[in-house]
Amino acid sequence: MRTTRPCSSSLLLAALVLNPLVGHARQAPLPSWNDGAVKQAIVKFVDDATRKGSSTFIPPAERIATFDNDGTLWAEQPMYVQFFFVADRVKVLAPQHPEWKDKEPFKSMLAGDMKGALAGGETAIAALLAATHTGMTTDDFAKTVADWIATARHPRFKRPYTECVYQPMLELLAYLRANDFKTYIVSGGGIEFMRPWTERVYGIPPEQVVGSSGVTKFQMNAGGPVLMKEPKIEFVDDGPGKPVGINRFIGRRPVFAFGNSDGDQQMLEWTAAGAGDRFMGIVHHTDADREWAYDRTSHIGKLDKALDEATAKKWTVVDMKRDWKRVFPFD
Amino acid sequence: MRTTRPCSSSLLLAALVLNPLVGHARQAPLPSWNDGAVKQAIVKFVDDATRKGSSTFIPPAERIATFDNDGTLWAEQPMYVQFFFVADRVKVLAPQHPEWKDKEPFKSMLAGDMKGALAGGETAIAALLAATHTGMTTDDFAKTVADWIATARHPRFKRPYTECVYQPMLELLAYLRANDFKTYIVSGGGIEFMRPWTERVYGIPPEQVVGSSGVTKFQMNAGGPVLMKEPKIEFVDDGPGKPVGINRFIGRRPVFAFGNSDGDQQMLEWTAAGAGDRFMGIVHHTDADREWAYDRTSHIGKLDKALDEATAKKWTVVDMKRDWKRVFPFD
Repeated sequence: MRTTRPCSSSLLLAALVLNPLVGHARQAPLPSWNDGAVKQAIVKFVDDATRKGSSTFIPPAERIATFDNDGTLWAEQPMYVQFFFVADRVKVLAPQHPEWKDKEPFKSMLAGDMKGALAGGETAIAALLAATHTGMTTDDFAKTVADWIATARHPRFKRPYTECVYQPMLELLAYLRANDFKTYIVSGGGIEFMRPWTERVYGIPPEQVVGSSGVTKFQMNAGGPVLMKEPKIEFVDDGPGKPVGINRFIGRRPVFAFGNSDGDQQMLEWTAAGAGDRFMGIVHHTDADREWAYDRTSHIGKLDKALDEATAKKWTVVDMKRDWKRVFPFD
Repeated sequence: MRTTRPCSSSLLLAALVLNPLVGHARQAPLPSWNDGAVKQAIVKFVDDATRKGSSTFIPPAERIATFDNDGTLWAEQPMYVQFFFVADRVKVLAPQHPEWKDKEPFKSMLAGDMKGALAGGETAIAALLAATHTGMTTDDFAKTVADWIATARHPRFKRPYTECVYQPMLELLAYLRANDFKTYIVSGGGIEFMRPWTERVYGIPPEQVVGSSGVTKFQMNAGGPVLMKEPKIEFVDDGPGKPVGINRFIGRRPVFAFGNSDGDQQMLEWTAAGAGDRFMGIVHHTDADREWAYDRTSHIGKLDKALDEATAKKWTVVDMKRDWKRVFPFD
């Protein structure tokens, strides 16, 4: 098993996110965003929402902003980070499961063949999630995630995944919070995979993270009560599940939402359908040099129908190459 | 259908809850609590939790306080308020359902025989909930609840249900918030039945309400996207479901929890099992004159095993008659 060690660069990142000057009126907001229509649209929306007495004013309690995570706040290529976690866990757990050597999807996964492992579709994914995400307590799982995220490295950038987050989006989160918006993550990723680190990395506390979940069961053990993670999917917070998750967890309709793929389309539609001013944003990955360029035909983070709807309805589309001065904090 | 009208007494109540002086250090906290061991235990816990540098200090972000609703924040006798809502909705909807005249549980409900209506147990309750809580959008349901709660009256006190809330608990909520606790409802009641009014009545916003829920489904209609309430129970936030709901919605373990029945036992156990100082409280209904006296054999709000555990583990048990100077704001 790996051990946790203090991660000075993550602390630096946290300091940056928590820096009270970021987003302050006295300093120009969003320094990593290039000047242009997108940055102007964001600033105008926030100015309008916070101008007391104006018809566009939004009471602070209703300033709910929801963000997708994979591809919107951090890199999702060449594979969702949670899948890298699964791959590493399968390796760590393999000695306790000699049968995996001859059994798919574990056999391919252990051979480093992610494509082969996922060839079995949903059944394969369910088996991998059951083997790596269930059969332990919620506390034990949270510790496993925290230990892993502190040491694992992104295959391209050779840095912790929590540093492969988008600097302009960190500034946007801080800018919104400085203007009394409550920032939420609404992700297809596992809720218990995100909560152990979102507060440190994004300044978003566990209670403002909405995600996919498995069934947990209360159990009284000799050492006290625990919640056991069971091999049964409870809720998939993706596509049409995102408005459902928003309604279930938050109980208010967002006035501001940001995504990057067709899995965010319904969240953006749900946000747009509210009364009054709304902001709908999409991160379009157009920068193969600094990050990746992908959209309509990508397997991960496919952006096709939502891009058409964004164009038709004049939602704000970020062109990463054009609109972001910096992509990552380490750039 | 009934119409909404401004409710001056509710506004008064809201003003009281929101009054910045309540719970302020300069004014003695909890004025409706009699001096004694219970009040002292609450004040000591909050003082200890907020004393910087002490071993009992709890960082503000971890100051999560969870409250049951029925019987803990408002009266649950002679019947859960949500059942009165169901009874009234069945009457309103009956003209559209001529078949209900001869069909249980509707027949008994329409005859005012609540006992007969509930004789069918879970099946009867599911049928009543399906008929009154589903088949409409979440927005329409919220409006129906808001209209009803503004006009319906408690059968004994002849006042809106939202006035039949416990004054000492309103003060406790405000006192905790003034000390940077985040107050949550964790109730077996329907989450969408509570959210339309909890902010006004308790100062608890929708996103801090955890409750039982039905399945909702995203649907794109001609007029835009809606969430339809489906006749399928999704989650029962009661008994062992309360720690599950707390973990799912909040993702942090409470340091302070208050309940009044065996349905709160696991929430209190889950709270108690955390590291460091914790506060577990139970409202014991001992006052038949001002409210009701019930515990071990009551059908509604049975308090039996949890009372034994509270005694054994020295949790704080409120004796309503002894500890509360006032019960309701209108006393």
